[in-house]
Amino acid sequence: MKAYTEMTRQELHIERERVASRFEEAKNQNLSLDMSRGKPCREQLELSNGLMDALHGNDSMLDETGTDCRNYGILGGIPEAKRLMGEMSEVQPEDMLIFGNSTLNVIFDNVSRSMTHGVMGCDPWCRQESLKFLCPVPGYDRHFRISEYFGIEMINVPMSETGPDMDMVEEYVNNDPAVKGIWCVPKYSNPQGYTYSEETVLRFAHLQPAADDFRIYWDNAYSIHHLYHEKEKQDYLPEILAECAKAGRPDIVYKFISTSKVSFPGSGLAAVAASAANLADIKRHMRVQTIGHDKLNQLRHVRYFHNIDGMHAHMAKMADILRPKFELVLDTLDRELGGRGIGDWTKPRGGYFISFDSLPGCAKSIVATCAEAGVKLTPAGATYPYGIDPNDTNIRIAPSFPETEELRAAAEIFAISVKLVSINKLLHQSKK
Amino acid sequence: MKAYTEMTRQELHIERERVASRFEEAKNQNLSLDMSRGKPCREQLELSNGLMDALHGNDSMLDETGTDCRNYGILGGIPEAKRLMGEMSEVQPEDMLIFGNSTLNVIFDNVSRSMTHGVMGCDPWCRQESLKFLCPVPGYDRHFRISEYFGIEMINVPMSETGPDMDMVEEYVNNDPAVKGIWCVPKYSNPQGYTYSEETVLRFAHLQPAADDFRIYWDNAYSIHHLYHEKEKQDYLPEILAECAKAGRPDIVYKFISTSKVSFPGSGLAAVAASAANLADIKRHMRVQTIGHDKLNQLRHVRYFHNIDGMHAHMAKMADILRPKFELVLDTLDRELGGRGIGDWTKPRGGYFISFDSLPGCAKSIVATCAEAGVKLTPAGATYPYGIDPNDTNIRIAPSFPETEELRAAAEIFAISVKLVSINKLLHQSKK
Repeated sequence: MKAYTEMTRQELHIERERVASRFEEAKNQNLSLDMSRGKPCREQLELSNGLMDALHGNDSMLDETGTDCRNYGILGGIPEAKRLMGEMSEVQPEDMLIFGNSTLNVIFDNVSRSMTHGVMGCDPWCRQESLKFLCPVPGYDRHFRISEYFGIEMINVPMSETGPDMDMVEEYVNNDPAVKGIWCVPKYSNPQGYTYSEETVLRFAHLQPAADDFRIYWDNAYSIHHLYHEKEKQDYLPEILAECAKAGRPDIVYKFISTSKVSFPGSGLAAVAASAANLADIKRHMRVQTIGHDKLNQLRHVRYFHNIDGMHAHMAKMADILRPKFELVLDTLDRELGGRGIGDWTKPRGGYFISFDSLPGCAKSIVATCAEAGVKLTPAGATYPYGIDPNDTNIRIAPSFPETEELRAAAEIFAISVKLVSINKLLHQSKK
Repeated sequence: MKAYTEMTRQELHIERERVASRFEEAKNQNLSLDMSRGKPCREQLELSNGLMDALHGNDSMLDETGTDCRNYGILGGIPEAKRLMGEMSEVQPEDMLIFGNSTLNVIFDNVSRSMTHGVMGCDPWCRQESLKFLCPVPGYDRHFRISEYFGIEMINVPMSETGPDMDMVEEYVNNDPAVKGIWCVPKYSNPQGYTYSEETVLRFAHLQPAADDFRIYWDNAYSIHHLYHEKEKQDYLPEILAECAKAGRPDIVYKFISTSKVSFPGSGLAAVAASAANLADIKRHMRVQTIGHDKLNQLRHVRYFHNIDGMHAHMAKMADILRPKFELVLDTLDRELGGRGIGDWTKPRGGYFISFDSLPGCAKSIVATCAEAGVKLTPAGATYPYGIDPNDTNIRIAPSFPETEELRAAAEIFAISVKLVSINKLLHQSKK
């Protein structure tokens, strides 16, 4: 397989004709496929249908202490939900607060609270002059949107297979008191599927923040979301709360976790794990904001999953649905683009995304070309703060939602689009 | 029945002995009764058990447009939920946004958003020098706590049977640009059970706020929560959004509504009705905060209640449980305290509370005396901003939660406590 980057102009022209005719063929299929968001497919959702039948009759709606979950009360979550989510989060039940249906909402509220009331007694952010968040890139667009919405300056920090560039993180966090946070998806990261190395986690735990109100936003969204059953094919992430405590700074991290991609997105449980001091700070706010979150949904989840073993068994079934989809996309990329020198992509062992990096300046054009052929991708740039990918290379691929045959078509159209745009780019360059 | 206020010291002493011995008797029963919060009782909760069985199998989880409610998406609520809550709120579906399980949370978030981002393009409240909210008193403690938490100055506005003192409201709202809001529970108000008169509603609609970012916080928590089936025994409240639109100021009101006391507190639906401009303002924020609220719970409610007729039928059953409890308390108060001149109380036709006003300076002492005999009441002062009832007279009675026999005992203990404290007060006064 000859790399496009080593082809002559003539060879490229011949190749372009071949690719262009395949693209026309694809376009004529009038497809409408969506690989834009990390949405579970119908088959995955069906795995959790039993949740809807978990509560019947009066007694089934009492928690283990006898509290009627149909009524008001219980601010931080029922005990068995704290236990379940604690197991999922690898912390003790007392280190947890259970919230509503969305960690995004909890994270947003955390930033909002920091703006209006400050972090654990520090000045409210809205009264501080300069606010910055570090943003490992590429990263999760919805995180970046929260900091952008609150007018927090975002600073790109490059990601690698071991996590964010920790030299840069330490440099910023330990010296600049305006740096208040860093967005982390530490396991099977969005979009690359990277898991922070042990060294990275330890360096996080040993940060010496210049700002007392600096917090690591540790969004462990894919903690048990493996693609493979075999332990040795699963990523491992050290538990951050324990490491921070050991390092003598128990308060520098909030850990977020949810069942959005375990049970039902939008109807799952969200939770926060943090130090006692942080939880007390959060509860002061929460107590004014609500009487309590949906306890019946908490109970429903406990009745259905029982414990972390139940969750793991459930996630193994999820893996059996997702793994072939990831492999199909990766095989297509290998077959079509392997050795062509026009793109790199990640090979995650869990999570929801594959990250693709094109030749510089091609990502937007590839996404647009795909759209022309009926394949919707996450907008190029979305994985960067302000939607600006400085090199215009990164594309997030979400293989979960389409059915297999659709996914096969979509992956092929993606690869063809990459080829077409890259050839044009190379021809254009060599002209100059 | 001779009024205590007209008794001689000697008569009062004799009466005190009689009352004190009844109090000792009550105390010796070692009761533990709770009339502190407006919590539905078990029997009421059981009326909604069918909700838990409303969703079965794949197809039952699609909304009427075919959207799978188990998956991500649909920021403002599924169409049929907007229709149901729109009917409940007497507005069109397009005037609604559906939220999570709690209007308190929605109201809090509204204030929080106003603090950090301002109201419809106005300066964020956190950058404005002076912020005030008008607080009809007695009122809902959780409203007051929100304004207190955000450092908003609270101004007491006296309530009467027709609503807040509108001369005072107009004076403040139309002249002071620091006045940003007013807390209203316009129907079966908390705690008095008063419903704003048509004139009051119209005067609200015709306010000419000095501040562009002034909003009426219209918390219609008890919109369909009648105690009586007969239309002529139900209160009527004009629809505020329509009135504001007619008056040419469609944007000055947010209307909040929930099923917390229709289905399950903590597991119901909350909603906002407002002008298109206000809803757009709210959605700008919401879009960053969440991907969407629990659509399965929305669907569950629609499947269970179908429409407003289903809700009314359901609420009629609620009334049959609540009405005897209200009547029991009112009968006890009449029998024990009628004509004694030591207290006044409201006789609501809906809602969750009875409001009691003691002789000046007696409320705290009455609540403490009740507690001594095992009856927990809402803390005196709670119905006023900062927990300070200037005359120390108001006590909120919540008859819903206790079972009938408990309630009978609790109401009697309450009446005895009122007598005891009042006699002591009168004796103390007459000594001076």
